[in-house]
Amino acid sequence: MEHFKVNEKDVFFILKNQLNYGSLCELDRYRELDEDTLDMLVTEAVKFATAEIEPLQEIGEQWGVVFEEGQVRCAPEFREAFKIYGENGWTAAARDPEYGGQGFPHMMRIVINDLMYGAAQSFNMAPSLAHGAAHLIESFATDDLKERFVPKMFGGEWAGTMALTEPGAGSNLAATRTVAFREGDHFKIKGGKIFISWGDHDLTENIIHLVLARIKGAPEGVKGISLFIVPKLNVLPDGSLGDPNDVICTGVEKKLGLHASPTCSLSFGDNDECIGYLCGEENRGLAHMFQMMNAARINTGVSGMTLASTAYQNALAYAKERIQGSDVARRKPGYIPIIDHPDVRRMLLWMKAMVDGMRSMIYTGAFWADLALELDEGEEKKHYQALVDFMTPIIKAYCSDMGFRVCETAIQCLGGYGFCKEYPLEQYLRDAKIMSLYEGTNGVQSMDLLGRKMRINDGAPFKTFMAEIERFIEKNMDHSILGKDVQSLSEATRRLGKVAGEMSDRAGADPLQWASYTYPALLCFGDITMSWCLLDMAIIAQQAMDDGKKNEFYTGKLMQATYFAGVTLPLTMARLDTCIRKGREIVDMPEGAF
Amino acid sequence: MEHFKVNEKDVFFILKNQLNYGSLCELDRYRELDEDTLDMLVTEAVKFATAEIEPLQEIGEQWGVVFEEGQVRCAPEFREAFKIYGENGWTAAARDPEYGGQGFPHMMRIVINDLMYGAAQSFNMAPSLAHGAAHLIESFATDDLKERFVPKMFGGEWAGTMALTEPGAGSNLAATRTVAFREGDHFKIKGGKIFISWGDHDLTENIIHLVLARIKGAPEGVKGISLFIVPKLNVLPDGSLGDPNDVICTGVEKKLGLHASPTCSLSFGDNDECIGYLCGEENRGLAHMFQMMNAARINTGVSGMTLASTAYQNALAYAKERIQGSDVARRKPGYIPIIDHPDVRRMLLWMKAMVDGMRSMIYTGAFWADLALELDEGEEKKHYQALVDFMTPIIKAYCSDMGFRVCETAIQCLGGYGFCKEYPLEQYLRDAKIMSLYEGTNGVQSMDLLGRKMRINDGAPFKTFMAEIERFIEKNMDHSILGKDVQSLSEATRRLGKVAGEMSDRAGADPLQWASYTYPALLCFGDITMSWCLLDMAIIAQQAMDDGKKNEFYTGKLMQATYFAGVTLPLTMARLDTCIRKGREIVDMPEGAF
Repeated sequence: MEHFKVNEKDVFFILKNQLNYGSLCELDRYRELDEDTLDMLVTEAVKFATAEIEPLQEIGEQWGVVFEEGQVRCAPEFREAFKIYGENGWTAAARDPEYGGQGFPHMMRIVINDLMYGAAQSFNMAPSLAHGAAHLIESFATDDLKERFVPKMFGGEWAGTMALTEPGAGSNLAATRTVAFREGDHFKIKGGKIFISWGDHDLTENIIHLVLARIKGAPEGVKGISLFIVPKLNVLPDGSLGDPNDVICTGVEKKLGLHASPTCSLSFGDNDECIGYLCGEENRGLAHMFQMMNAARINTGVSGMTLASTAYQNALAYAKERIQGSDVARRKPGYIPIIDHPDVRRMLLWMKAMVDGMRSMIYTGAFWADLALELDEGEEKKHYQALVDFMTPIIKAYCSDMGFRVCETAIQCLGGYGFCKEYPLEQYLRDAKIMSLYEGTNGVQSMDLLGRKMRINDGAPFKTFMAEIERFIEKNMDHSILGKDVQSLSEATRRLGKVAGEMSDRAGADPLQWASYTYPALLCFGDITMSWCLLDMAIIAQQAMDDGKKNEFYTGKLMQATYFAGVTLPLTMARLDTCIRKGREIVDMPEGAF
Repeated sequence: MEHFKVNEKDVFFILKNQLNYGSLCELDRYRELDEDTLDMLVTEAVKFATAEIEPLQEIGEQWGVVFEEGQVRCAPEFREAFKIYGENGWTAAARDPEYGGQGFPHMMRIVINDLMYGAAQSFNMAPSLAHGAAHLIESFATDDLKERFVPKMFGGEWAGTMALTEPGAGSNLAATRTVAFREGDHFKIKGGKIFISWGDHDLTENIIHLVLARIKGAPEGVKGISLFIVPKLNVLPDGSLGDPNDVICTGVEKKLGLHASPTCSLSFGDNDECIGYLCGEENRGLAHMFQMMNAARINTGVSGMTLASTAYQNALAYAKERIQGSDVARRKPGYIPIIDHPDVRRMLLWMKAMVDGMRSMIYTGAFWADLALELDEGEEKKHYQALVDFMTPIIKAYCSDMGFRVCETAIQCLGGYGFCKEYPLEQYLRDAKIMSLYEGTNGVQSMDLLGRKMRINDGAPFKTFMAEIERFIEKNMDHSILGKDVQSLSEATRRLGKVAGEMSDRAGADPLQWASYTYPALLCFGDITMSWCLLDMAIIAQQAMDDGKKNEFYTGKLMQATYFAGVTLPLTMARLDTCIRKGREIVDMPEGAF
């Protein structure tokens, strides 16, 4: 049974009708592209995901990960797929042609990942990590290192990782203990890393680790961390492969999900023979790594959303076919497809709205990111950068938690069958759970959003975000059909502004109480962003219908928006009030009372 | 690592301080018992669960279920445990001594299940099903059949099942197709059943299936269904075992969780040799089965709650030990245990309140069930029966969905480790997912609650439930410390009454719109019941402190109540309003628009 299902019309509606993504081709960097070419890329990505990637989902789940004699072995089909993925240009679709990229807009990576993660989450992490690692090298390393590593990583020959976490340094990277000793033009690396996704495998002959470590004598804390390129096999100056570089895989985690993605413990320099090359500036490693981490946070949201999307599509297909029970209103005799039961429709409509809203939120953020990266220096560029900064933790946390919730709801639509491995849904649920945990837990995201992102640049990210919603509200508040819902959004947004302001004041004066309510506040930001995106799509759909294009597709855009706003915003308003309540139970609870 | 953790003080606080369960010993049936004996039973159950049952959790998960040549084989340790479980009296603790029971109050079964499910969910389903099946026979079958089957099932010699579901008859039992042909004093059974928990195994030499089937010529629909006793091996009149009874296990499901519990497809009478004995009255099978189904629904809530309880206790233990990150208020230098991070405390406090509230809700329902069963005929008995009727779908649906949510939150407390099989939490999450699906999906429960339970006996279940909360409110509304929270509960309860009434009116006039909002309405009933139970416990704790017994335990009861009510009831109020909104998107959405 083909499990990967995506509604291409939904994807294109956001890209074309909502965002007009073809307008990116007016930017200098994309002058040689046009909208048709972008459309074709999306269509080709759907085809590739369906034909080449989707079979890996089941193959990977069956095979899992074999760890024997310090070597990880994956399903043989993964090796071939990784190569084709790179060769066909998917890995580096959005990267500069100079090192083998295709030169497409940055946002196309997000669209490609949407489709590829939707088809096989575990597998797509491998090329995605290779891309992220190579892009770090491309961005910060010397020309010599770039030439040595990047083209092979972009081209599907070598893989890559990001190696941050240590047993005592998870959320808190300041505690990083891995050390780098200077030795001529390179360093010797020594230390252990854990939870390294695709940390070892046999998909490629070499793996390039991007490792955070502390140069001997560097300051304590985050300001003494540097970034290193550490290949699994040494790469000689002529590009050929040398001896193993004293990087050992010491274990592989057994996990709830992502069974086909090896999560490794790595030991660097057990024999003092592990060579690393500085990537970027000394002691600026964390700042450099944040390029990859921010991308990874967005991609985590993409994963949550696309697993939800695929789960929803599977539940929908099931609900149309499964016959069970009688019509509650006795409209028809006999037994009926379960999509005709209101409670099943309730779940389907909620899931549809969640998926479409999250996809719109993510694509919108990706579109802004392109503008932030490619516009000339100036106010407009800063404007989009501020929006991206603010949206990143919302996308990461909201889409991961809500993506999981959608997977859970999709299972519910199948009744007992949802619990069975005969259907793909239980795997989506398991795979989705990691998204709230890695790349900074959702609690960490909420403190970033309600803390740093409210403060930096004199509050520009927050202010710009609020102004953007308010602009939408002002324009559409008197809309003949959706005006009432836009007004609800307006009311919720005003309350959000007030609560976020009060919380910001608290952050300094009463940080414990502030930190007790950052997570629910983040949820409110998410709900309001969702309502905005859904209403925006609904207004566009209504315009199309006013122009004579009446069809069910547009009706769906309207109904999902009014339903979501109608059942969500009242709860958001209530939750916002709880974020500034006076009760101090969380802070005051004695440890022995838990 | 010992994964089973329970706070006995919490358990006894509900049983003794809140419910005064010793008062049950004043009932005729329990005259020979006293509170000390009940206390001892609880203490012994904790010991037995810890020593004998808890090891089965990991053993079972490792072994899984082996299905070869039509026979299911389970972990050998399960066989011994099942026997001891029966022999030691746990299976039939609450049953009449006449057939081997221990004569304890019915509610003690719930307390025992809380502990045993908490220690090993998959295993405890086996004796629990044996109990339920035997109790059906004990309640409805002829004396001859009772003597033949019940003592061996109560005593741990034989197991039992409930065999309802068929491929085309899940939520809709009216579609049952299994047939019974009369043959002298017994019947021949023919048909297939699926999703039969513990439908085959090697824990016992015999398995007694309680099977729903339609006697040849019986009316269509639910009024033509009868209940049959169908042993795996024939039982001769002298009680000895005869030939196999033509019941074949044709398959075992591969599932998300409950890996040690075989979920079987069974074929009855492939060779026309399957003998069944009528249990109770002809065509009253579904009514009889409801005794077991109602108990199973409560037990499903118990499972959801106790998995949540164990998950919470594990997360709590982890949070106290795990060192990571710095204090957000810089109260201490260096790195701190994560229980000192407000966002972790937020999760812990919420989980604590959920677990304690759900346990109180369930135990209260069980206490009422004893009164409903054992009081003499009259108004008081009817009063408690009405309460139990109303609480059953709330306990089943709310505790299963919220239990899952707690397991998810417990994982979140562990960060990336929550995703790893090294810790027990990911299994709780997987095992817990079934609870919202089986024994009637939570959607079905919501229609039972907002439909039948509002209507039957002129609305007595609903009215009695509301009166019971109002009595609590009236008594405590001016409480010096908790009065404000009781007033919030009062406001929410008034709104609940209004919304439930409006929905009831809709049920007849506009059933599709009504059924679109029964599930969120059920959640509101759950939230309000929770707040009530938690505030009741808080008031008792405050009284104890007023009496000079100040300690952290009581402080915890207060703080969990004010926190839960404070962050939940405002959302409940908002959600209640959405249940009667005018928007008809769920009903009107064209199928093609999904």
